[in-house]
Amino acid sequence: MCAKAVILSSGGLDSTTAMAIARDQGHELFSLSFDYGQRHRFELQAAERVAQAFGVKEHKVARIDLRLFGGSALTDDIDVPKDRNAAAMGDGIPVTYVPARNTIFLSYALAWAEVLGAERIFIGVNAVDYSGYPDCRPEYIAAFQAMARLATKTGVEGRTRIAIEAPLLHMTKARIIQTGVRLGVDYALTHSCYDPDAAGRACGRCDSCQLRRKGFREASVDDPTVYVSTD
Amino acid sequence: MCAKAVILSSGGLDSTTAMAIARDQGHELFSLSFDYGQRHRFELQAAERVAQAFGVKEHKVARIDLRLFGGSALTDDIDVPKDRNAAAMGDGIPVTYVPARNTIFLSYALAWAEVLGAERIFIGVNAVDYSGYPDCRPEYIAAFQAMARLATKTGVEGRTRIAIEAPLLHMTKARIIQTGVRLGVDYALTHSCYDPDAAGRACGRCDSCQLRRKGFREASVDDPTVYVSTD
Repeated sequence: MCAKAVILSSGGLDSTTAMAIARDQGHELFSLSFDYGQRHRFELQAAERVAQAFGVKEHKVARIDLRLFGGSALTDDIDVPKDRNAAAMGDGIPVTYVPARNTIFLSYALAWAEVLGAERIFIGVNAVDYSGYPDCRPEYIAAFQAMARLATKTGVEGRTRIAIEAPLLHMTKARIIQTGVRLGVDYALTHSCYDPDAAGRACGRCDSCQLRRKGFREASVDDPTVYVSTD
Repeated sequence: MCAKAVILSSGGLDSTTAMAIARDQGHELFSLSFDYGQRHRFELQAAERVAQAFGVKEHKVARIDLRLFGGSALTDDIDVPKDRNAAAMGDGIPVTYVPARNTIFLSYALAWAEVLGAERIFIGVNAVDYSGYPDCRPEYIAAFQAMARLATKTGVEGRTRIAIEAPLLHMTKARIIQTGVRLGVDYALTHSCYDPDAAGRACGRCDSCQLRRKGFREASVDDPTVYVSTD
């Protein structure tokens, strides 16, 4: 029997590549997405498409209300920044940051992993082209894992030692894309844009679109994404 | 201006005492409860009564679906154990354990604390009469705090250093009750039972009721709780 892994899936480029790596390592896949009142709800459809394409054992969508607390352009009526250059993106933490989001996501994954008896949680965070989120740094992931091992029944009983796998942590976006292509990922299924139009087309100008476009360019891979603007 | 504190409130004896301690220390109170599909939904009403009695600045109820993953007698159709003696309670982790519950609760509190600029999160966990839950141990609380400081924007920017306060950690149930009484807590407002009857009356026999009854007895304080059974 193969080892089970819970994959946090946003339907985006990074988490889908993380899922491909988990599959390549021989894990049985359980994907978990969140309906958290995000403005870019097309990502939930992308996560569903990705789950089907990967033939995951089970795909769950947890409804959580991050708007309850506010504080982010991704859940509130704050404008998503556009056309920022690399210097602006690297300067501090952007308004698209959702407070404690990865902590909440990983906590849910931990609950499911414990019920499943899964020993691995995969998360597609990245510390290179990471848009400045605090909960995408290696020291954060290590601290979460240390906490998780103390938090759970299986950890206490010594039956499993849950590991938080962040295989993209030190990869550039270009290397992530090259890795995914090698592992057979169809990036046309994925969705990255923070502010798509009514038809779900990527804006091409938010931080996420810009990092994605730059990644495909630098990877010398054709970008299958349909952007509203590629100025 | 007083410092803000987010209090995880279940409407129970422990979290209400933790709230009294936070108030006594001069914090401005923000209470947070969870509607997680628990069988004992009377605790949400108790949390609301407690919030009113304490005059909290704001009380929020986050709806989260822990039944999505299953695995606990508190959310599934598993019988809540009754009439267990102290030895049985101390033997392993009971079926009332909800996977990763405190981790999920603290993660939400962290999100709200970050938005509020609160530096303290109070949680009424207890490592003495704690029913054997792994996420009620001091090393777990310390690990969560270490993770939380790396997880947040305010932590990274050095503006706040969030602390997880677990003031009941090393208290017996009797000492918790004595502390609460000294600080003016009306325990008649609180609800502890895992399996109340249709009118909300405590069963008197689940682990939580037994620990509560024993606590009042040992504290030599009159127990204001109405129990269905006190055999």
